[in-house]
Amino acid sequence: MDKDERIILVTNDDGVTAPGIRALIEAVSPLGKIVVVAPDSPQSGKGHAITIGVPLRLNQVDIFEGIEAWQCSGTPVDCVKLARDKILHRKPDICVSGINHGANHSINIIYSGTMSAAMEAAIEGIPSIGFSYLDYSFSADFTLCKEVAYDMTKRVLESDLPAGSLFNVNIPITEKQEYKGLRICRQANAKWVEEFDERRDPHGKKYYWLTGEFKNMDPGEDTDVWALENNYASVVPVQFDLTHYKLKEQITAAWKL
Amino acid sequence: MDKDERIILVTNDDGVTAPGIRALIEAVSPLGKIVVVAPDSPQSGKGHAITIGVPLRLNQVDIFEGIEAWQCSGTPVDCVKLARDKILHRKPDICVSGINHGANHSINIIYSGTMSAAMEAAIEGIPSIGFSYLDYSFSADFTLCKEVAYDMTKRVLESDLPAGSLFNVNIPITEKQEYKGLRICRQANAKWVEEFDERRDPHGKKYYWLTGEFKNMDPGEDTDVWALENNYASVVPVQFDLTHYKLKEQITAAWKL
Repeated sequence: MDKDERIILVTNDDGVTAPGIRALIEAVSPLGKIVVVAPDSPQSGKGHAITIGVPLRLNQVDIFEGIEAWQCSGTPVDCVKLARDKILHRKPDICVSGINHGANHSINIIYSGTMSAAMEAAIEGIPSIGFSYLDYSFSADFTLCKEVAYDMTKRVLESDLPAGSLFNVNIPITEKQEYKGLRICRQANAKWVEEFDERRDPHGKKYYWLTGEFKNMDPGEDTDVWALENNYASVVPVQFDLTHYKLKEQITAAWKL
Repeated sequence: MDKDERIILVTNDDGVTAPGIRALIEAVSPLGKIVVVAPDSPQSGKGHAITIGVPLRLNQVDIFEGIEAWQCSGTPVDCVKLARDKILHRKPDICVSGINHGANHSINIIYSGTMSAAMEAAIEGIPSIGFSYLDYSFSADFTLCKEVAYDMTKRVLESDLPAGSLFNVNIPITEKQEYKGLRICRQANAKWVEEFDERRDPHGKKYYWLTGEFKNMDPGEDTDVWALENNYASVVPVQFDLTHYKLKEQITAAWKL
């Protein structure tokens, strides 16, 4: 396909004004026509939430020079659904989400608005990639991220992949000369150990802030966590058939229904 | 384990006052000590969202006779996290979520607060089941659902399953004499075709309601959608390792990194 006919949908979960989405737009602009549809406020940790009980707003914004961009009052998944139905009126050729300010490796994929937006596009049969940078700060340096985003997006566009191929890409914090390249991985077996921070409001009533410590329980060297610790950008191919086939076999044999 | 020592965590996404959670409590009460931690308002479609930007409230309620129950201001996933850390101070022996007013079969699992609550417990290594009834109405008859919930919960408690085994159970709308029993299935390949309902507010500005049509693209007779159409209750074992191993092999061979 001619790059001038190609439509690249760009979204994120940190909101349309986050530096990470600007970096992503700059990175993938050489590969096609960009259309941005992103949340109007931060939506971190929104997972695959959709908005049912209230209606959605969609407003065009002029914050990226020469690029059509919209902000939406809903979740990252709402953005992708609205982009398809009300803005593009067709499937984009690829959807890229991010660049997230903060890691989305291992179990974090489940909670991530960045990855849920990409997954929503993949469910529609659109090749999709979520990008996340391990640096949480507003002033993070996205130079390496932009190289990774360009390289990965070009690879996915030029590869003969099944419809709806989906990738979770995380980029390490590292000096350019230490960076070792892309590494194809599986999702590490990890979780968050929660300890809620319990406080009292001025009226004496308790409230809780979610906090937690990340715990990697996976010794494998083929995981995304290992790759990132060793200065690779991790690339995890992602599915949305959640059937646990091994457990299915086990209970089929055991339960004799 | 003695049933008197067993703790059953009950949650849902329709909120603590929904008839479905009351039905679930009644169904599983003979199997152990019940503790309820559920949202204080409807949380349908919240997927695996967690609450980061605002603190959470937790209040004890006395609406189920003789049963410890709490309502939480957060999402279904927040409920499970708070239950573990601030109420139970240990892992429950099983977590049951629902009974949801409406279907959560096939791709709906991705958007479902009911299933995300159960998945959060499974990530913690707790055996977990989400129950959903295809009848959306407030006045739905949960008689068959309660039988299914008791049977499935007892099976899971008494089976020798891996830690964090997770099941998505949907119950059909059917007459008792037509009901064919449990059927172990895979997740059907299906999706929602969205058409947003576009309206204008009194000031002339557009807004959008999410609507859509469910489309099953899967002809298989081993799917949850098929089972429900044929008067079975569908049981899908669920995983949270989202790695797409087949695509991983394919790009490993093709990309030669």
